[in-house]
Amino acid sequence: MTRVSASLTEWQDAYPVSDWEICERRLVPERLATMESIFAVGNGYLGIRGAPDEGGPAHDPGVILNGFHETWPIAYPEDAYGLARTGQTIVNATDSSIIRLFVDDEPFDLSSARIARFERVLDMRAGVLARTVEWETPRGARILMRSRRLASLERRHLAAIDYEVLALDRCARIAISSELQTLAPHDTADDPRRGRGFAEKPLVPLAARADGQRAVLRLATRNSGLQLGCGIDHRIEAQSQATVHASAAGDGAAVVVLADLEPGEPLRLSKFAAYHWAPAASTHDLVARVDRTLDRAVRDGFDAVEREHSRHVDAFWQRSDIEIEGPRHLQQAVRFNLFSLLQATARAEGHGVPAKGVTGRGYDGHYFWDGEAYVVPFLIHTNPRWARQLLEFRCGMLEVARERARELGHRGALFPWRTIDGREASAWYTAGTAQYHINGDVAYALHHYLFVTGDLGFFLDDGAQVLIETARLWLELGFHSERRDGRFCINAVTGPDEYTTVVDNNAYTNLMAKENLEGAIRVVERLRSRDADAYARLVRVTGVSDAEVEGWRRAAELMYVPRHEELGIVLQDDRFLERKRWDFEATPAENYPLMLHYHPLELYRHQVIKQADVVLATYLLGHYFGEEETRRTFDYYDPLTTSDSTLSACIQSVMASAVGYPETALEYFLDACAVDLADSQGNTSDGIHVASCGGTWLALVAGFGGLRDYGGEVRFRPRLPAGWTRLRFRVQIREQRVEVDMTPAASTYRLRRGHGLPIRHFDQQLRLAPGEPAVIPTAAVKQSSS
Amino acid sequence: MTRVSASLTEWQDAYPVSDWEICERRLVPERLATMESIFAVGNGYLGIRGAPDEGGPAHDPGVILNGFHETWPIAYPEDAYGLARTGQTIVNATDSSIIRLFVDDEPFDLSSARIARFERVLDMRAGVLARTVEWETPRGARILMRSRRLASLERRHLAAIDYEVLALDRCARIAISSELQTLAPHDTADDPRRGRGFAEKPLVPLAARADGQRAVLRLATRNSGLQLGCGIDHRIEAQSQATVHASAAGDGAAVVVLADLEPGEPLRLSKFAAYHWAPAASTHDLVARVDRTLDRAVRDGFDAVEREHSRHVDAFWQRSDIEIEGPRHLQQAVRFNLFSLLQATARAEGHGVPAKGVTGRGYDGHYFWDGEAYVVPFLIHTNPRWARQLLEFRCGMLEVARERARELGHRGALFPWRTIDGREASAWYTAGTAQYHINGDVAYALHHYLFVTGDLGFFLDDGAQVLIETARLWLELGFHSERRDGRFCINAVTGPDEYTTVVDNNAYTNLMAKENLEGAIRVVERLRSRDADAYARLVRVTGVSDAEVEGWRRAAELMYVPRHEELGIVLQDDRFLERKRWDFEATPAENYPLMLHYHPLELYRHQVIKQADVVLATYLLGHYFGEEETRRTFDYYDPLTTSDSTLSACIQSVMASAVGYPETALEYFLDACAVDLADSQGNTSDGIHVASCGGTWLALVAGFGGLRDYGGEVRFRPRLPAGWTRLRFRVQIREQRVEVDMTPAASTYRLRRGHGLPIRHFDQQLRLAPGEPAVIPTAAVKQSSS
Repeated sequence: MTRVSASLTEWQDAYPVSDWEICERRLVPERLATMESIFAVGNGYLGIRGAPDEGGPAHDPGVILNGFHETWPIAYPEDAYGLARTGQTIVNATDSSIIRLFVDDEPFDLSSARIARFERVLDMRAGVLARTVEWETPRGARILMRSRRLASLERRHLAAIDYEVLALDRCARIAISSELQTLAPHDTADDPRRGRGFAEKPLVPLAARADGQRAVLRLATRNSGLQLGCGIDHRIEAQSQATVHASAAGDGAAVVVLADLEPGEPLRLSKFAAYHWAPAASTHDLVARVDRTLDRAVRDGFDAVEREHSRHVDAFWQRSDIEIEGPRHLQQAVRFNLFSLLQATARAEGHGVPAKGVTGRGYDGHYFWDGEAYVVPFLIHTNPRWARQLLEFRCGMLEVARERARELGHRGALFPWRTIDGREASAWYTAGTAQYHINGDVAYALHHYLFVTGDLGFFLDDGAQVLIETARLWLELGFHSERRDGRFCINAVTGPDEYTTVVDNNAYTNLMAKENLEGAIRVVERLRSRDADAYARLVRVTGVSDAEVEGWRRAAELMYVPRHEELGIVLQDDRFLERKRWDFEATPAENYPLMLHYHPLELYRHQVIKQADVVLATYLLGHYFGEEETRRTFDYYDPLTTSDSTLSACIQSVMASAVGYPETALEYFLDACAVDLADSQGNTSDGIHVASCGGTWLALVAGFGGLRDYGGEVRFRPRLPAGWTRLRFRVQIREQRVEVDMTPAASTYRLRRGHGLPIRHFDQQLRLAPGEPAVIPTAAVKQSSS
Repeated sequence: MTRVSASLTEWQDAYPVSDWEICERRLVPERLATMESIFAVGNGYLGIRGAPDEGGPAHDPGVILNGFHETWPIAYPEDAYGLARTGQTIVNATDSSIIRLFVDDEPFDLSSARIARFERVLDMRAGVLARTVEWETPRGARILMRSRRLASLERRHLAAIDYEVLALDRCARIAISSELQTLAPHDTADDPRRGRGFAEKPLVPLAARADGQRAVLRLATRNSGLQLGCGIDHRIEAQSQATVHASAAGDGAAVVVLADLEPGEPLRLSKFAAYHWAPAASTHDLVARVDRTLDRAVRDGFDAVEREHSRHVDAFWQRSDIEIEGPRHLQQAVRFNLFSLLQATARAEGHGVPAKGVTGRGYDGHYFWDGEAYVVPFLIHTNPRWARQLLEFRCGMLEVARERARELGHRGALFPWRTIDGREASAWYTAGTAQYHINGDVAYALHHYLFVTGDLGFFLDDGAQVLIETARLWLELGFHSERRDGRFCINAVTGPDEYTTVVDNNAYTNLMAKENLEGAIRVVERLRSRDADAYARLVRVTGVSDAEVEGWRRAAELMYVPRHEELGIVLQDDRFLERKRWDFEATPAENYPLMLHYHPLELYRHQVIKQADVVLATYLLGHYFGEEETRRTFDYYDPLTTSDSTLSACIQSVMASAVGYPETALEYFLDACAVDLADSQGNTSDGIHVASCGGTWLALVAGFGGLRDYGGEVRFRPRLPAGWTRLRFRVQIREQRVEVDMTPAASTYRLRRGHGLPIRHFDQQLRLAPGEPAVIPTAAVKQSSS
């Protein structure tokens, strides 16, 4: 079911058309919370929510540091063995974004001020959020404020704000208070998708220092054993004399600038904020690190910081941009999705990609399979080094995943459904721990990375171990069922679709398990035959044996996948067809997402799907499905799929393209790419849906572009949506870069980097060479395609 | 799997053999907590834990009032729509049992005192807990203390303690402090079966009064809106002069008696404690009620109170005793089970039967299906008025159950899995709300009561409404499945067995649903044809229509019950056979109960059973099963049944008897009847397992006696266990009373009350008449039985 909808119109009304900008021309109180996420700037390590410079009016303002979290004991009203014990919640780090302005002692307050002009612009080409406000003070003075804000891609610990005040018509006595504030905890609500609130501030102050134009704080989390150093420093440019006073105490600090401005003589305050955090147990001197970051920033100044930052943004667009010519607004929405991916991943280094990136605290700042399944494909093809970092981060959880498996009585490793520190943090095991497919998703992403990048080195180390330990777990979970002629069955698992939990033989899971097992076998055999030392090391570390590999082979060969012969479809699980179909006609629109309006059991007993499950398998593991079967499978599940999860519409779009439903594909694509701009889930206020941004890339590249590359062989099946005059994107494959340029008349492949690459266009083999574009007229396509 | 075991030997070593007594001759610190439950005295309304008179050493001492509870908001670490919101926990009511003794200012303390003699005896014939202690004080005086304690069956609000002190060899200056104490909250632990603890005392004091030998308190719960009045008063008999001073403040009070005792001259303190509680919103003057209860008690004196109490106990045994001749200890254990049933039910009036009766705060003092399924059968046949009260209490929840159904989007009523105030309190919906069979169990109990007692009046009022509203819910949950030729399927439910949750077509549930539907149809048709007024009323109140009844009929007729033709068994659920068998050989004994050592998913994916499920259906709904099928079903499930729930062994025993496995039946019976005396679950400290006590009665009467009576036709199939020389019990059927006397030689049926009753002995029709015992030699039985 697509939703193309009111929300889309809403989005198109909300933002002026622009290819590179998201622009807001007036403050709409109802959209304030959403805009905090839309206008967040981040670099994957730190993010600043898009609250006004003055700190308010705001919904959940502040700074988010990837992975910087508090822990708390999970208390179950009824407990059971093996449930997750340690809650983990991203912390609202000390906010450095606040710059308060007073003119003639009157504070500037957006919610009550008389505003003559207002504009906020997220400039995605520059990677900067800019604001212009003209204020008429109570005394009638006209004040112009301009600010630019960025989270530096060059310096991951640095955020910078350039703030300018100009008295337009008369002298203004101004005071600017540039602050560092540890905000009180934000309220929580009942929506399970939101982050957890705290009863008291999760950060306790350890030290505070103010000096010149600088203030630095050291704080620690109460329970999770993390320390934070953060600080601000400034450069002030003004024609008139400015007095500066810095103070710091407890968990807050302020640098106050006083000046009397003549009309037309601006005061410019460049504010730099630095963040370093680490385990408290480490001996790092975080305050010294903050000082060094600030030293360099102040020396170089905002303009230099912005210039180098924008160079990274440029480079990102060079590798990652997707150009669309066609309906208004689309280019803007697509770029917003790509830009969000940049902000979520670029400098995450050593951390994962939280469900909301660093734009909000939704989903507690947790890492899910979103990273592996929805973001890694984009990174593999645009920024493979970032993909590798993300996978390395996951591999770094191996030891904790081994412990978790042991706790559950299993050999091998079990990766957590949701986590920050590597431990399972899901307190809802039926859709948490039961989603064992996380293991398969991790293994899949590792393989996908290997196939597309050819970066074998990574595999010889961590990758191989992870493949082995994840493969192992399947043998612990499943068994060769006598009642199924020895087929390997895996019971009591939850697939991607969370509207049906704890089922037997979820097709997605079983196929992922098969892939995982086969991948593990391949890597063991490869090492055994080609690298005796590496093999010996692997055997020593993992204890893998020939007999074990034989067990994997047998399980993989005999892996059971439920199918319905008559319908010609793969079943989501053994029992899926036995359920009653959900009565969609009787379900009012306001009852979506269903999980907020129906008891879990009511969902479980019906054929109703939250998100692509078998359909996802037909995309990721297309090689297991016949063409007809794929189409029938889509036909069966699509009408049952609510896409109440944002992980869904994008995949439905990809597969609608694949099976020949271009209109449906386009509708789903529009759903996917508007998730946040249209706030179609109603919770963009908690942060941008990063997985859906990755999914939007998939819908374009794997959907309309028809890219398939798992296994390393690259094939395109371009299908330009009706009404579009161009879709152009670039993908990187084993260090070469292909540009695909789709127009109604032809598809053109250009090798933008590299020495030569074989690809397939539908069933046609092409060998791309530098400077020799392959132009395939669309008519030819239509003939050669099935 | 039976467990007959170490624990049995333990039990037999722990208590001296006695037909009517449970006796303890020394204080064993490790058994202290368990003995508090074993030695609890209660009347169904109030219970006093078996802590020493001095209040310590103790585990969780105090007074429990049936239904007197505190509420708290259930906080889920991850939330979902429709989960239970209000936690309910039985409160440790103000303790009136404490009587401290000081001799020459030295406090008597059991844990450190020099004890020359110690004996505690639960006299089940008298319904009294008696203690005798001889203490040698530090100064060398020998003091004899004797006490008797009871919770009056005649006066449900009254507990009484007769306390006597005697200086044996020299003059003793004594002080006795008789107290009323609101105890601090007890610690909680991780075991989900235990009651919840509170961070602060759940009771706040409202008023305190002391006067003469009396002290009275008024208190209220913090959140649940209940008020408690409680008080103590005394009679003192002594040859020497006694000084008395009463004081009361806050939530405590004490009446202090000072006396100088000559050797051989006892001081007798009769203490009376009264409890009245009610919603705070009511206008009841609870303090005045307490005063009146105390007035009467003090006027009549302990001996009179004990006499009238014991008359009720006598009458109970007249109706309910089961005599066993055979192995040592058995009579004692059986009587303990029956006595526990008396203490749990006799004066519950207006309340349910908590899982632990009034002997402990385990399971939060909640009412489960235990009452309907395990206690009502006993009551129907021994104390039908108590059965009716219990069923009326359940029917009184109808309005709340309707609300709960509405909350879940359904018509009809959904009774709570666990509750005190009628609202669902289970925070574990997979084995809570999903146990929809609670509806069927309630309907079953109503029918069973009607069939056996013939008390139709009850039905015309509440009973009919409950039947209709419960029947309704099945149509909401289930549907006619096209894939099963229109058979009525009910998906996503949990049956009695909690090691397999949220399954499709649980046979027990579906059969119970069928019964419920057919019962509702019967009652509607009966009313329609015979009582136009009552029918019109019913239609008005419930809106029941012919079309709706037609829908029930179709669902009942087409109710799907999963069977496996080849194995010839009924399947616990659609998928049961698809699971892997649990590896019992690889499971160490200390890993039972499994739920404390394995993740729920690990249990769910295996064929492993916590408690009788299909086997329970073969007992309760034997008419749906062929003889061969019943046996095969038992054969299949019994080896998979851990009986980790105490609801299990008794039913396995009943069905082992039925299918001709007398040894297994005996072993299970021993398991069941020793649950508490042997503390075989390790949690008797939290209270007596009342359902298992009812199950023990079932194992004897329905198992060895072979009683079947559902539908109203009464049949016995006596099968005396090997080594027993007699089993004699009485059952009441439509106001007549039959005594069944089984010996190795013959079964004898005597009509002890009534005018004449048809019964069946195996397949033989008998008509019992007063004074004309029917004696059937065992040889004859063997011939006539199949």
